[in-house]
Amino acid sequence: MRILTRRHAPGTAPGTLAAIEPPTEPIRLRYTEYGLETLVETEVTRPDEVPEATPEVTQWLDVEGHDVELIAVLGERLKIHPLALEDVVNVGQRTKSEDFENAVFVVVDCFSIERGDEIIAKEQISLVIQPDEVLSVRERRSDLFEPVRARLRGGKPRIRGGGTGYLTYALLDTVVDHLFPVLEKLGDRIEEIEDEILVSPSPGSVNELHALRRDLLVIRKSVWPLRDMLNGLYRTESDLFSDETRLYLRDVVDHATRAVDIVETLRETVSSLMDLYLSSVSNRMNEVMKVLTIIATIFIPLSFIAGLYGMNFDPAASPYNMPELGWYWGYPAALAVMALVAVGLLVFFRRRGWL
Amino acid sequence: MRILTRRHAPGTAPGTLAAIEPPTEPIRLRYTEYGLETLVETEVTRPDEVPEATPEVTQWLDVEGHDVELIAVLGERLKIHPLALEDVVNVGQRTKSEDFENAVFVVVDCFSIERGDEIIAKEQISLVIQPDEVLSVRERRSDLFEPVRARLRGGKPRIRGGGTGYLTYALLDTVVDHLFPVLEKLGDRIEEIEDEILVSPSPGSVNELHALRRDLLVIRKSVWPLRDMLNGLYRTESDLFSDETRLYLRDVVDHATRAVDIVETLRETVSSLMDLYLSSVSNRMNEVMKVLTIIATIFIPLSFIAGLYGMNFDPAASPYNMPELGWYWGYPAALAVMALVAVGLLVFFRRRGWL
Amino acid sequence: MRILTRRHAPGTAPGTLAAIEPPTEPIRLRYTEYGLETLVETEVTRPDEVPEATPEVTQWLDVEGHDVELIAVLGERLKIHPLALEDVVNVGQRTKSEDFENAVFVVVDCFSIERGDEIIAKEQISLVIQPDEVLSVRERRSDLFEPVRARLRGGKPRIRGGGTGYLTYALLDTVVDHLFPVLEKLGDRIEEIEDEILVSPSPGSVNELHALRRDLLVIRKSVWPLRDMLNGLYRTESDLFSDETRLYLRDVVDHATRAVDIVETLRETVSSLMDLYLSSVSNRMNEVMKVLTIIATIFIPLSFIAGLYGMNFDPAASPYNMPELGWYWGYPAALAVMALVAVGLLVFFRRRGWL
Amino acid sequence: MRILTRRHAPGTAPGTLAAIEPPTEPIRLRYTEYGLETLVETEVTRPDEVPEATPEVTQWLDVEGHDVELIAVLGERLKIHPLALEDVVNVGQRTKSEDFENAVFVVVDCFSIERGDEIIAKEQISLVIQPDEVLSVRERRSDLFEPVRARLRGGKPRIRGGGTGYLTYALLDTVVDHLFPVLEKLGDRIEEIEDEILVSPSPGSVNELHALRRDLLVIRKSVWPLRDMLNGLYRTESDLFSDETRLYLRDVVDHATRAVDIVETLRETVSSLMDLYLSSVSNRMNEVMKVLTIIATIFIPLSFIAGLYGMNFDPAASPYNMPELGWYWGYPAALAVMALVAVGLLVFFRRRGWL
Amino acid sequence: MRILTRRHAPGTAPGTLAAIEPPTEPIRLRYTEYGLETLVETEVTRPDEVPEATPEVTQWLDVEGHDVELIAVLGERLKIHPLALEDVVNVGQRTKSEDFENAVFVVVDCFSIERGDEIIAKEQISLVIQPDEVLSVRERRSDLFEPVRARLRGGKPRIRGGGTGYLTYALLDTVVDHLFPVLEKLGDRIEEIEDEILVSPSPGSVNELHALRRDLLVIRKSVWPLRDMLNGLYRTESDLFSDETRLYLRDVVDHATRAVDIVETLRETVSSLMDLYLSSVSNRMNEVMKVLTIIATIFIPLSFIAGLYGMNFDPAASPYNMPELGWYWGYPAALAVMALVAVGLLVFFRRRGWL
Repeated sequence: MRILTRRHAPGTAPGTLAAIEPPTEPIRLRYTEYGLETLVETEVTRPDEVPEATPEVTQWLDVEGHDVELIAVLGERLKIHPLALEDVVNVGQRTKSEDFENAVFVVVDCFSIERGDEIIAKEQISLVIQPDEVLSVRERRSDLFEPVRARLRGGKPRIRGGGTGYLTYALLDTVVDHLFPVLEKLGDRIEEIEDEILVSPSPGSVNELHALRRDLLVIRKSVWPLRDMLNGLYRTESDLFSDETRLYLRDVVDHATRAVDIVETLRETVSSLMDLYLSSVSNRMNEVMKVLTIIATIFIPLSFIAGLYGMNFDPAASPYNMPELGWYWGYPAALAVMALVAVGLLVFFRRRGWL
Repeated sequence: MRILTRRHAPGTAPGTLAAIEPPTEPIRLRYTEYGLETLVETEVTRPDEVPEATPEVTQWLDVEGHDVELIAVLGERLKIHPLALEDVVNVGQRTKSEDFENAVFVVVDCFSIERGDEIIAKEQISLVIQPDEVLSVRERRSDLFEPVRARLRGGKPRIRGGGTGYLTYALLDTVVDHLFPVLEKLGDRIEEIEDEILVSPSPGSVNELHALRRDLLVIRKSVWPLRDMLNGLYRTESDLFSDETRLYLRDVVDHATRAVDIVETLRETVSSLMDLYLSSVSNRMNEVMKVLTIIATIFIPLSFIAGLYGMNFDPAASPYNMPELGWYWGYPAALAVMALVAVGLLVFFRRRGWL
Repeated sequence: MRILTRRHAPGTAPGTLAAIEPPTEPIRLRYTEYGLETLVETEVTRPDEVPEATPEVTQWLDVEGHDVELIAVLGERLKIHPLALEDVVNVGQRTKSEDFENAVFVVVDCFSIERGDEIIAKEQISLVIQPDEVLSVRERRSDLFEPVRARLRGGKPRIRGGGTGYLTYALLDTVVDHLFPVLEKLGDRIEEIEDEILVSPSPGSVNELHALRRDLLVIRKSVWPLRDMLNGLYRTESDLFSDETRLYLRDVVDHATRAVDIVETLRETVSSLMDLYLSSVSNRMNEVMKVLTIIATIFIPLSFIAGLYGMNFDPAASPYNMPELGWYWGYPAALAVMALVAVGLLVFFRRRGWL
Repeated sequence: MRILTRRHAPGTAPGTLAAIEPPTEPIRLRYTEYGLETLVETEVTRPDEVPEATPEVTQWLDVEGHDVELIAVLGERLKIHPLALEDVVNVGQRTKSEDFENAVFVVVDCFSIERGDEIIAKEQISLVIQPDEVLSVRERRSDLFEPVRARLRGGKPRIRGGGTGYLTYALLDTVVDHLFPVLEKLGDRIEEIEDEILVSPSPGSVNELHALRRDLLVIRKSVWPLRDMLNGLYRTESDLFSDETRLYLRDVVDHATRAVDIVETLRETVSSLMDLYLSSVSNRMNEVMKVLTIIATIFIPLSFIAGLYGMNFDPAASPYNMPELGWYWGYPAALAVMALVAVGLLVFFRRRGWL
Repeated sequence: MRILTRRHAPGTAPGTLAAIEPPTEPIRLRYTEYGLETLVETEVTRPDEVPEATPEVTQWLDVEGHDVELIAVLGERLKIHPLALEDVVNVGQRTKSEDFENAVFVVVDCFSIERGDEIIAKEQISLVIQPDEVLSVRERRSDLFEPVRARLRGGKPRIRGGGTGYLTYALLDTVVDHLFPVLEKLGDRIEEIEDEILVSPSPGSVNELHALRRDLLVIRKSVWPLRDMLNGLYRTESDLFSDETRLYLRDVVDHATRAVDIVETLRETVSSLMDLYLSSVSNRMNEVMKVLTIIATIFIPLSFIAGLYGMNFDPAASPYNMPELGWYWGYPAALAVMALVAVGLLVFFRRRGWL
């Protein structure tokens, strides 16, 4: 996973919009307009199809995919500051919220599990929140905000009458809620590795722990500022959020804090597992080496004795030259001495606690 | 121990009540109503049996077990905010206290030792504190709050006249006091492991240290916010707590701080023991390897000498071909050389400090 | 050393006084009453022998030993809040100062070296400071506060006219000053271990470092809050302390800060020594293993050559069957080859820097 | 890379200007004067060629190279405080901004990649910002600020009418933007090393990780104070920066914060890779040692059996003396026993999971 | 290096002056009196030779060496608070500045390189700053403040007219400037060790790293509070320092901050080198062990084959008894088999990447 963000050349004028990668899917603009009584959902193809904002209804334009020119046109139409526009287009921004004269600009990362539980995708979501209009820009087409749409259709007054403040809450809540399945998946994987390490530690476990550590690092770099940013929104004096909506924002802050807690816990667990792995491998290795060394050590004196009686001193030349070779019980005695030595060493090793 | 909390699907409307696991025990509602002079304790089966709150008496409804529908009814009757209700039902919340318009909502974790000192159970306790009424919801039936009931029955004016503020204190104090036996048990286990490690370190000790580290991590994640939350309650400007009750709250803060201290100390001790174990195992292994290697090393030159005189050079072919084999003192001399080599090596090893 | 504090059962009413261990020595009450001109020192046996406080003189009641009933009586007589009384009796409290309506309550730990420099004793000192009266409660009889008494007898106006504020300072200064010999002793021990490790590292050093680490952990948990508490007293707006006395309190804060510095330095030194030990042991082990392995490696090819000429191929059966055995210079040549191999390996090892 | 800064002798009067190293290139002074309508770019050779500052135009004097005397003259002419001048000349200053009576003095480090991607150069940039005039001093000639010049030539009113505040922003933005390619290069190198370590860990990887760690340390020591300094400029109450320019400054703060994030992430990754390397090397070593030890261990008993039947006990002297040697199936039986032992050991090793 | 400070017995009255070590050199009192027009430098022998302070001139009494009685007399004459006097005499104080009624009391540590670059000396400097008089007390005679004297003689109005505020700055600046050569020397030594470790790591490097770590710890404990203390002086509201002098103080704060940065960088580098050393030693050891083990492993099967044909089975007793011994190509075939085995093993090892 690369963590460095793609950027244009140093020294370019700020607010320059430049396509970094050609868009792979056609862009989609979904326009929703709602009030307590009304709800209109359409797809538009050009920004000028979006009606002017009026205080009567809440407008939400959800852009799926990056089309630099289209976003430039949108920016002009909605009078978005060029610096905010630049950050919308250049993904890889830090999680943050910035106040502009007529709008609040929010950037968050959304993590989600994809392609059969195998990949954790990271996507930048940009929100430009104005009193009567919310613009959300995502990197690609997805059903991420479908549950919010469904609740709009459900028609409860809480969301239909909540204005852009409550809509912002609903979108951010969706993003934060997406964190938990991701963390749960990582947690599950960590538990599996823990079981592997306790049963049979393999180098693969370490590589995977290393990868998990990097993933958690990336998530952590998103989640900490996310919590602070949400807390900032909750405490902001802006009148975008009503007192009732603030209670809901506090709830999202609480969820983000829990996500932070889980990330930190997972990180500590991974560290602890690394230690456990090292200790486990070292224990197994010690076990192997000890047993093998003991086997070798027992046979070494035996082999010496055998070698001794393999010497070719001439018994005929002297009565002191290996007379044992000619004794009646010579061979059995030699075997007995060997057996004694082996048993003695085994007893010695056991007494020292090495077996 | 799983630390990730169970959650409903991302994007669901906030405040949705959903049963996560079917309740295994029937729920129990214990209703207590008391003043300086009166005390009524009953079990109720339906929320509407609970009388309306009046300033004359303090009402305490203690719910043991989770019944989503019942809690939804209760919530409506006591006008509890849906976000608070959601957190009551979805256990695994962070320790926190939240101010709502007409109530303070408190979530804490209670740790207790169960089933013959073998299991540390974690249970979420939710308190909804209103001027004249306290609602406490627990995950299951237990005698956790029996001491508080006993003190109510005792009739001292301090508790009977203390209103919901003092009752809140008494319930929280009970929860905090339950931490100490748990920590003491963990501390005892750590001391046992320390003794094991100093006497005979085994891989099992590491696995247990790893498990203790995880347990302490879980407890720590509860105890730190617990202290902060209690401190927040102590410093809150709400008039729920009288000046006298605040002194008692300060005492609970002090206890929680002590628990934090103990947890941190235990964590450092576990880390230190991990190091001690590694050093201890490494020392023992070194000892074994050194002795065995020395034995091997002493015999290697001896075996070489024996092998030397096992060579089959033909003494008849030349006077230089192993004439030693035919010498009168050949064999004793060879043995003597071997003995000399062995003693020499032993002296050398001892001089180098390897024995 | 156990760091968990003894506590009564969870849920007991706060402020309950319960003897934890039967007092082993009879309690002693030393009463001192002094002003600029007067000084009365007596031992009393019952609290009601203590005269009523008057603004003319400063009263100091020093209780050595824990007698629950006596302290309960004292508490009632001096109108001490039950929560403070509870903490006086249940030793193992955190270092803290608490304001009550009519008094300041201070708990500190006093560390001192005992029994021939072998034991570091930890004792809880509780002070209840009222405008004209100081109550000090210690765990047992000792000469801890003798220097303060001696200075009172000395009669300098600074202490005799300083009231309870200056007396509090003098008592706390004595407690803080007791820290330094303890830390110096630990520092000396750490230096000795450092010398041991540099000269001949033994597993005993690690165990001792581990014990020192635990001791420093315990002291650290007392010294950090001690500094904060003293700083709090120094900055308190209470009129217990005159401006002149505050200068002295600042001096104690400074001493406590120095103690904190020393503790942190010692902790870092112990960590560093742990690393040094591991590196040192590993170096020595490597040295041993390397030399032994080299000896073994040199002899292995020699033994192989000896084994080669120990083979029994029949030279009579073929001219290719070990004709060397019958050569005139066969044996000397074999010896020469062995010597060459040995020298060659030695040169090789030296060139690689392994010797 | 040396990180200590060169300094003059201790005790010298502050504000003494002393050439530390003889300038290797001739100095270059580039003077730019611009307003909404006008733009003059010239090279000057003497400071007195620079016209007096007037509120009508913005003046920018860009000094490339260090000439102590020239800077002393400049300092006098622009009334720069001697302490600021000293810091301009003595490179190796900390990143900082300091308010003087009539100017803001800013020091930052600029990192850039040079000589074919091989070297990361660090250069001190000093800015003296006055209401109508900016002085920038760099260590040597380079095109660092060319993009700013190009934008000035482009003539957009945003920069041409932005005064010294916007110019300061543009210069600092260029410096911060230069960080990203450097970090990206370090990140790429770290990824390559990660691949190396996963495939075939070599000691060279560690040395390079160590070097990367040092480089990151140096960058980190610049980037943290850079972020704080920029944040200080953004929040300063000085009227150097208009509200619109502040928005741009906030954008630079955001970029610097991202740089800090990346540096921290890279540092953690390097640490993690160090662990991975150690674990990887240890795994490979264990693998080698285990296989080799097992081979040795299998042959040791076989060699013993061979040695046994190499003994020279005289079968003629006794029926118990190695009668096996004369058996019809003696040799095949011995081979069979050896094969059995070898197979038995292999099975044993496999069962224990050592193969 | 001992870091614990010498102290008098616990419980002594505060402000007691006691000689800790007999002064080894005679004390020297250097008296300087200066104004814009006048400068008098003399040595005095008794404190009463110092004239009374007058607002016309600035007085500086520089005491080199500790004479308890003399300092007691001085203290009385200059009306210095006994607590400040105590800290002047008892060296080993923490770096700090304290406000007394009529004076500011400053304690700092001065580090300097002595005796041919071999020793880093630490000396406590105490300053008592009064509106018209500065008292500086050092532990021994040295030329430390010679540069300040030289600048006074130089007669620039900045110092001669700067009063005690600027003099204080000049003295503190000298002390801070002395830090850099010390840190540079430590940095040089660390670089040398790094080269040693990369070329040929020896246990001596670790011991030296350990010593450097301790030295850096001692310096760090001085430098951090030094920075904070200087920052405190810079921000103090006292009118000792004019606005112009404050700019200079800010410059010293900046230098101290740079010293802090360097110390932290050196500490991290030492830690990193410790890791590098361990990894380097482990790599070399692995290399040695691997090669030696491979040599042993190759010869083990060869020796087994040699041992096999050294067995004494009687070829005459059976056609199956080692008929190879009598074959025409027996011996060459045996040698060929051995060569094949050796080559086979080498190929195998190479394929596995072990060579």
